[in-house]
Amino acid sequence: MKPKINVLTIGVDNLEKSLTFCRDGLGLPSDGIIATELQDEVSGANGAIAMFELQNGFMLSLYPRMDLAKDAKYKIGVESSTEFSLGYLTDNKDEVDAILKQAKEAGATITDEPRERPWGIYSGYFKDPDGHLWEIIWNPQMVSE
Amino acid sequence: MKPKINVLTIGVDNLEKSLTFCRDGLGLPSDGIIATELQDEVSGANGAIAMFELQNGFMLSLYPRMDLAKDAKYKIGVESSTEFSLGYLTDNKDEVDAILKQAKEAGATITDEPRERPWGIYSGYFKDPDGHLWEIIWNPQMVSE
Repeated sequence: MKPKINVLTIGVDNLEKSLTFCRDGLGLPSDGIIATELQDEVSGANGAIAMFELQNGFMLSLYPRMDLAKDAKYKIGVESSTEFSLGYLTDNKDEVDAILKQAKEAGATITDEPRERPWGIYSGYFKDPDGHLWEIIWNPQMVSE
Repeated sequence: MKPKINVLTIGVDNLEKSLTFCRDGLGLPSDGIIATELQDEVSGANGAIAMFELQNGFMLSLYPRMDLAKDAKYKIGVESSTEFSLGYLTDNKDEVDAILKQAKEAGATITDEPRERPWGIYSGYFKDPDGHLWEIIWNPQMVSE
């Protein structure tokens, strides 16, 4: 196994609503919902998914939790915010504030306002409409790419 | 907001155990648990975390769910496998089989054996010891990086 992850698929309740948040609210680029015509006869999972081509070839995709459960052949879970958080490195502190403001305007909830943390960063968190945590981070020791 | 995600932090129960799975079982590179001496007096969150520097500057980190909850100032959730899945693109079908075998030997549970799916991929899923889903994918239309 090489040291890489190519795709992060996050479970959502409503594809259209989550796409609107990420594309129109956060401004992430997407061609919208694709593969709506596909269904897996084996698992019953629908193909419909929204993908975002991010920098460095990394893909973010939104996929209904129920379809993820069927596709992975595993039981559906409940919404749970502490399974992961997405981290975004900014170029400065002001950008942390600005992105949290943008996310809030797009419908996110700020769970922790930006502040200095003892591990040498300035960061804040928001929770997106599906309950997923995003941490916006200014880390002077890490170059943003 | 730029189209990027720099870090994925996944919530775990036991840092040592999860590190062992990812580093020794999957072979992902890590310096082990760091920042064990740090604690945030504001939130009570511990600093201890295990980080993996993956390709293209992407960082994967393991962080106890309880500390993530405190750091994000949000309630702790229950283990839930359908919040996300990690996607790994292989160079061929055999590699899908091999990585799932490796993960199983490392203590993961195969939830869906590799098979062709109607969206043009050959893939299978495993669940890691923290209940997180990983999909290992051969997609002839996507170049692995």
